[in-house]
Amino acid sequence: MSNAAQIQPVLDRIDADFDNSLERLFALLRIKSISADPAFAGDCRAAADHLAADIATLGFATEVRPTAGHPAIVAKLNGGGAGRPHVLFYGHYDVQPVDPLNLWHRPPFEPAVTDHADGRKIIVARGAEDDKGQLMTFVEACRAWKSVTGSLPVDITIVIEGEEEIGSKNFVPFLEANKNDLKADFALVCDTSMWDPNTPAITTSLRGLVYEEVWIKAANRDLHSGIFGGGAQNPIRVLTRILGGLFDDDGRITIPGFYDGVKDLPPDVLAQWSKLDLTPESFLKPIGLSVPAGEKGRLLIEQISSRPTCDVNGIIGGYTGEGSKTVIPAHASAKISFRLVEGQQPDKIRKAFRDYVTARLPGDCTAEFGDHSSAPAIALDWNMKPLAAARRALTEEWGKETVLMGSGASIPIVADFKRTLGLDTVLVGFGLDDDNIHSPNEKYDLKSFHKGIRSWIRILAAFAV
Amino acid sequence: MSNAAQIQPVLDRIDADFDNSLERLFALLRIKSISADPAFAGDCRAAADHLAADIATLGFATEVRPTAGHPAIVAKLNGGGAGRPHVLFYGHYDVQPVDPLNLWHRPPFEPAVTDHADGRKIIVARGAEDDKGQLMTFVEACRAWKSVTGSLPVDITIVIEGEEEIGSKNFVPFLEANKNDLKADFALVCDTSMWDPNTPAITTSLRGLVYEEVWIKAANRDLHSGIFGGGAQNPIRVLTRILGGLFDDDGRITIPGFYDGVKDLPPDVLAQWSKLDLTPESFLKPIGLSVPAGEKGRLLIEQISSRPTCDVNGIIGGYTGEGSKTVIPAHASAKISFRLVEGQQPDKIRKAFRDYVTARLPGDCTAEFGDHSSAPAIALDWNMKPLAAARRALTEEWGKETVLMGSGASIPIVADFKRTLGLDTVLVGFGLDDDNIHSPNEKYDLKSFHKGIRSWIRILAAFAV
Repeated sequence: MSNAAQIQPVLDRIDADFDNSLERLFALLRIKSISADPAFAGDCRAAADHLAADIATLGFATEVRPTAGHPAIVAKLNGGGAGRPHVLFYGHYDVQPVDPLNLWHRPPFEPAVTDHADGRKIIVARGAEDDKGQLMTFVEACRAWKSVTGSLPVDITIVIEGEEEIGSKNFVPFLEANKNDLKADFALVCDTSMWDPNTPAITTSLRGLVYEEVWIKAANRDLHSGIFGGGAQNPIRVLTRILGGLFDDDGRITIPGFYDGVKDLPPDVLAQWSKLDLTPESFLKPIGLSVPAGEKGRLLIEQISSRPTCDVNGIIGGYTGEGSKTVIPAHASAKISFRLVEGQQPDKIRKAFRDYVTARLPGDCTAEFGDHSSAPAIALDWNMKPLAAARRALTEEWGKETVLMGSGASIPIVADFKRTLGLDTVLVGFGLDDDNIHSPNEKYDLKSFHKGIRSWIRILAAFAV
Repeated sequence: MSNAAQIQPVLDRIDADFDNSLERLFALLRIKSISADPAFAGDCRAAADHLAADIATLGFATEVRPTAGHPAIVAKLNGGGAGRPHVLFYGHYDVQPVDPLNLWHRPPFEPAVTDHADGRKIIVARGAEDDKGQLMTFVEACRAWKSVTGSLPVDITIVIEGEEEIGSKNFVPFLEANKNDLKADFALVCDTSMWDPNTPAITTSLRGLVYEEVWIKAANRDLHSGIFGGGAQNPIRVLTRILGGLFDDDGRITIPGFYDGVKDLPPDVLAQWSKLDLTPESFLKPIGLSVPAGEKGRLLIEQISSRPTCDVNGIIGGYTGEGSKTVIPAHASAKISFRLVEGQQPDKIRKAFRDYVTARLPGDCTAEFGDHSSAPAIALDWNMKPLAAARRALTEEWGKETVLMGSGASIPIVADFKRTLGLDTVLVGFGLDDDNIHSPNEKYDLKSFHKGIRSWIRILAAFAV
């Protein structure tokens, strides 16, 4: 069953059953599965049990499996014999803490549909989007398909973890230990965003990250600038000179070799991006800015997603209290992060940065470095068959061309799937930039939830072709 | 009486009476005249009364006069008719607070002579140097001269204030109000240092100061560098780029017009300074450094005293706690001070700095400025007659060539004497770099006190020639 006529009864069922879908989501949202706080460990277990029981009703062989932390759910429904595609769907049932609680307009674990200021209907609760609402779009799609047809169009393994919000440190070993049991043709992750409330998107690249800290040291103690000023080296002068030289006049990063291996966008993607409405007006004006700050000659969307960047995230040195003090400090430090793209190797970038700093140290100064994190960029194959299928399906559901977009951030599980299971991932999600994930008043558009479920029907049908 | 043979009896008296001189200094040191703390206002008054009564015993017409704060002492002894030089001697009886008290090796107001680690005899107490010990060298010199000869070789007005450590804000109006009563030919200030424990010095220049704070602002809130990195301007990037460009490769400050009006040293002074033992080894090694950081091609002593400088005294922006945060902050700020020399005008330097920053702001960034202080440099006439006389006299007493030195710091009263009374100042003092003024365990070398008193005899004699 794969054409539009065949899936229409399933889509109709989704529309007819939507109030029940919403109530099932609410039941999950009411469970306080905050993974970061040990006081909620029982709630995490309850969320896993609740969700596993629900998925089991669809005919999946479902288990709640222990990890070294909160448990994971593994659910399988294979049928129809050999040759069918096998997809591994990933989501997470854990949520972020809710503090500061006083900024919530209603209790975070009492979900409700309310009206957004601009008239949109929204589901408000902790986890409404991230990731309970998102993962339930897939579960509800499976339910509708199964209930109408008695089967599913592809083989599906669902794996849902409970520690995504605290770094998945026990889930990655779990993947490793269960890799023979999690075999599939590719992975689906529902934890990303749409382009805008009406335009679907597939995330095809995730930037990597190298995060460094550097301490510049000179004299063996703080000095009086009246006595030593002009004679003694000032670490802030050295630090600002080095950091101030990280960019040239065109906004390019000056570290030798930094752009080695970085490729330009394929012409067709660049052409698509050129037509998008991600403009300084739309993207920067809400934050009070108007001038794209990245490399000259690049689209703003390139600057924030397909190009590598550098930001000084923190700097401190000397006297920073009220008033003035004529001090030459003994040291100064900064935190610097690099967003990486495909072709850049974190270790090489880290070394290039450290070499850059060290080469610019004047006499009497030393530099010490600290390493905060390191992750390579992920670039998915734009022409991967399931990605192309999902793209067509999303365009069909939303009536607007699907945007293949890069995300400036990282989703480490994508690299973990590749490394442990050998799987490529298709990243489809229905979040929006204003969903307040990780913040008070998290929400999920009612339309995201409803059309998200319908989108999966079309995507699964397209996979089955 | 002006040649060495004539003053020998006075010098002999000083040596013979030294234990009594020391006891008189101790009596003054025992008074807790901390000007900053209102709880010690009575002690400040007591110090003024005690000192005035002592000076009156030398035959000075002495008054303790009120100010809007702690009182000032004015004492005059004129004699011998017209044509004699008239000097105005300045000192201050107030002292710095003593905290942290636990770091003192003995009670700060119980003076004693102890042994320094290297064998020098030292007077230890709050105010031992700054400025009770220093001003008492002059009082004791007058006492010895008067007691041996019955008169003084020049007309002398002594003015001693009680608020130097808190900015002299009531003393400057006092000078203004009493300017007809404080007429003299030039001023003497005893609040500076020797070149080293065996080499006398006259301070002939004091650097000025312009202290600025600048805030660079961009977005209207802190941003996530994964989402906005590369697109949104980062104020730390802007601030480090601007501050990092303040110096060229030769250590010169790049602000247009910064060096306008700055003169090179007279050749004879440069020749003298070239022969001094202020080397990177002697000056920088104790603080763990070895490479002079100022303008290339300049002596270290020029870099720290006769050349203008710039130091970033503090910088802060973004996340500065433990670990990492991928933030692009909304603002970043720095505190920057300039030490000025003769020929530089504080207002022009301030404006030049602000123009420099403003001209380098990229789109979307604003700069706000705050003004912490402003004082012009003081450069005394190297060939001023009393300065030349004092130089000869000091060389005679110490047996080493007197160094004419620049101080990197400021003594605002020197500019106030010039402005209110029209007087040039000769700055002679016997402090040492290791006297711990303003710190626990303040001390004054016993030799500084003894030979300081003797030095004034030779200086006063030289003035009278």
